[in-house]
Amino acid sequence: MELSRLVIASNRGPVSWRRRPDGGLEARRGGGGLVASLGPLLKDSGATWLAAAMSDEDREGAASGVESEGFRFRALDIDPATYRMAYDVVANSTLWFLHHHLWDLPRRPRFDRHWRRAWDGYRLYNETFAAALADDAPEDGVVLVQDYHLSLVAPALAAKRPDLRLVHFHHTPFCSPAWLEVLPGPVAQELLAGLAAYDACGFHSPRWEAAFTACCESRMPVGPPTFVAPLPPAAANLLEVADGDDCGRELRRLEEQVAGRKLIVRVDRMEPSKNILRGFLAYDELLDQRPELREKVVFSAYCYPSREGLADYLGYHSEVEAMVANVNARWATADWTPILLHTDDNFARSVAALRRYDVLLVNPVRDGMNLVALEGPVVNSRHGVVVLSRQAGAWDRMADSTIGVDPFDVSGTAEAIGAAIDLDAAARRDLSTQAAEVASSRPLSAWLADQLAAAGESL
Amino acid sequence: MELSRLVIASNRGPVSWRRRPDGGLEARRGGGGLVASLGPLLKDSGATWLAAAMSDEDREGAASGVESEGFRFRALDIDPATYRMAYDVVANSTLWFLHHHLWDLPRRPRFDRHWRRAWDGYRLYNETFAAALADDAPEDGVVLVQDYHLSLVAPALAAKRPDLRLVHFHHTPFCSPAWLEVLPGPVAQELLAGLAAYDACGFHSPRWEAAFTACCESRMPVGPPTFVAPLPPAAANLLEVADGDDCGRELRRLEEQVAGRKLIVRVDRMEPSKNILRGFLAYDELLDQRPELREKVVFSAYCYPSREGLADYLGYHSEVEAMVANVNARWATADWTPILLHTDDNFARSVAALRRYDVLLVNPVRDGMNLVALEGPVVNSRHGVVVLSRQAGAWDRMADSTIGVDPFDVSGTAEAIGAAIDLDAAARRDLSTQAAEVASSRPLSAWLADQLAAAGESL
Repeated sequence: MELSRLVIASNRGPVSWRRRPDGGLEARRGGGGLVASLGPLLKDSGATWLAAAMSDEDREGAASGVESEGFRFRALDIDPATYRMAYDVVANSTLWFLHHHLWDLPRRPRFDRHWRRAWDGYRLYNETFAAALADDAPEDGVVLVQDYHLSLVAPALAAKRPDLRLVHFHHTPFCSPAWLEVLPGPVAQELLAGLAAYDACGFHSPRWEAAFTACCESRMPVGPPTFVAPLPPAAANLLEVADGDDCGRELRRLEEQVAGRKLIVRVDRMEPSKNILRGFLAYDELLDQRPELREKVVFSAYCYPSREGLADYLGYHSEVEAMVANVNARWATADWTPILLHTDDNFARSVAALRRYDVLLVNPVRDGMNLVALEGPVVNSRHGVVVLSRQAGAWDRMADSTIGVDPFDVSGTAEAIGAAIDLDAAARRDLSTQAAEVASSRPLSAWLADQLAAAGESL
Repeated sequence: MELSRLVIASNRGPVSWRRRPDGGLEARRGGGGLVASLGPLLKDSGATWLAAAMSDEDREGAASGVESEGFRFRALDIDPATYRMAYDVVANSTLWFLHHHLWDLPRRPRFDRHWRRAWDGYRLYNETFAAALADDAPEDGVVLVQDYHLSLVAPALAAKRPDLRLVHFHHTPFCSPAWLEVLPGPVAQELLAGLAAYDACGFHSPRWEAAFTACCESRMPVGPPTFVAPLPPAAANLLEVADGDDCGRELRRLEEQVAGRKLIVRVDRMEPSKNILRGFLAYDELLDQRPELREKVVFSAYCYPSREGLADYLGYHSEVEAMVANVNARWATADWTPILLHTDDNFARSVAALRRYDVLLVNPVRDGMNLVALEGPVVNSRHGVVVLSRQAGAWDRMADSTIGVDPFDVSGTAEAIGAAIDLDAAARRDLSTQAAEVASSRPLSAWLADQLAAAGESL
């Protein structure tokens, strides 16, 4: 298709603005994985990307649209109170927790009068996107709506613009039917009806697709068409960073810290779904059960703070810090700190760690995809082995080239890390080579093409 | 069938012993709902009941069997360390949390080396029951194994005694497949294989039966036969207590406290699955949203401490106390305490509250049956209305004669309590009369008969 008919809609846009000292506005490429994935594909496409303004500078900079790297970006001005309700309360504290099965159900969630107002805010946020898309989308356009923030865009938009084809893609898992029942009945119904109004709904894994279908079956006669389109890593960008000077400098620094020991690495946001606590518990059990490994391994963990406006995330951060302190207090010697925890975001340093790991631990309790599990093998140069949770979407692709773990099984995780360390050179080479091949085998464009195919178009 | 061929097996027995001041042993009827339900049916039956000894006195008193009310009781001597692992760690901290969906998954459970030893203890506890039943059960006997403590009795027992028919009955819900995946794979497999070795598995609700069947379908070619047999309340015993002097005295005391206000009641163990916190949050929201109800209602909550050896239960107890203090601090006046929390166990007082309630709140997050929802209507004398969670097994029977709530929906629960208070006299009478009819319609013997029918026998 002619990509000028394509519109991307997402909460976070590809560009953000800040004010220069001289008072003018300066545009910068935005953060977030979606930009890294879609940016290269949209270059010079003439497509449109619609997102929420995250600041006053964004509102001013992109209200009426701006050209950037060959596609048009428009930032939607959403009232800050509405945005907080939609983003913090509903998207990140409700739908994220729901789809990742994170609630401590005796205590959370609490669907009270404050939450009901937040749900109204989420509706309004979605309707604002729908109205902007109805005004703005090209005739017979294809709108690819990204992620759980925007579950409810389709009903209003489809009614106003029947010429458009609307595809939704979930970057999270989708909750199982038992978890959907946690929502008040009418809210669960509205959520599913919102998604059912799309022409198709896409997921990273057949398991999330099956969960969504099962949820639909429990509540409506016919669900929408679905498809599976796993997101590949942005390999080209990653290899460029891996070859860069910053990464080289970080790698040398890391080698000094590691000092010839076996290196276990994890790279994650500081996020309850990532299962950081049990990763350290497993490491503690490994050191307890296998004394010969003490002083011979080091666990370098890159856990970058995220959503720190939410008490759950601040609390989790504290628990992680406390656990690292405990494990280090138990095992450290004069020459050896068992866990090195890094919480200041530094992409080049993360990539350096991915180049260097002997074992990469990726053990989320539940994860839509988890690109780290694929990014590691793309850049690793040590025949490092990935220990991967069976609850990550990436497991579908990597089951044969990683060592699998049940994420709640601390002993099993300890044994898997030990087994990864024990593998002989030939086995490590075979496994890591296979992992790199799988991780590199699918181009980024395939993911976009799958979404377009769901709209009846080809790339 | 001749009930002398019947054997009941359960963790807790119908009789417990304590030492008299003179050094002799004194038998007393044990606590727990199962005794109240089965005791009357087994009177003079010649049946056998096998349970774990809970104390040294039990070991001494019932090691070789004792006659009590016309059936034989035998207490199994289980090593205390094994018992703690089986009962505290696996049964109550793992399987109870699993089947009720109670875990805060980013943090709990942690299947580490200590837990693996506890699972060995659970196996041994089950094998001890199996060995005792193999020795002791009458030829061609029917063994009714009660509840989640004894999931693994059947494989060893069926191998040794093919003449027996073995039925398992779950008093809890059964977990949904998404929750079963939380267990390490081999443990989930062993649990289901243990249950599949029974001739049949029974549940209080078709929903728990469906969850079990779905779990089996995900992990084995053919699951065991299943049946649904909801437990009725022990109505005769309850009415006897309700007519007794103790209850009358408690009722007069309660009337003084209520002083003519509308009375909301809950009666529960102090237990995370009972959703006590959200019950008080809903009451707080009701008082916030409907000022005219302030000083006109009182919430008398009977929440009896349970499993206080587990940190989770102690913590939950503290949270409940703190929330009551907060709500009372917010709304109390010189003449009115909004919530009266009673934590010292007193059955006659609970029955008095059930006689007197205007609204009975039963809002568990998930509950195998919840007999309180049926016991209330049996004894209530005020045309009181039950507000009932749709996640309780009792909902299957009481949906048409109660006001339903989604247990996580605090606002919805507040509205339901308000609606129950608002009902006019005729509507209250109709609803409460219907509830009493349903709650009284099924005799206790039907529940036993259903289990025997699953073994190919009739009562």
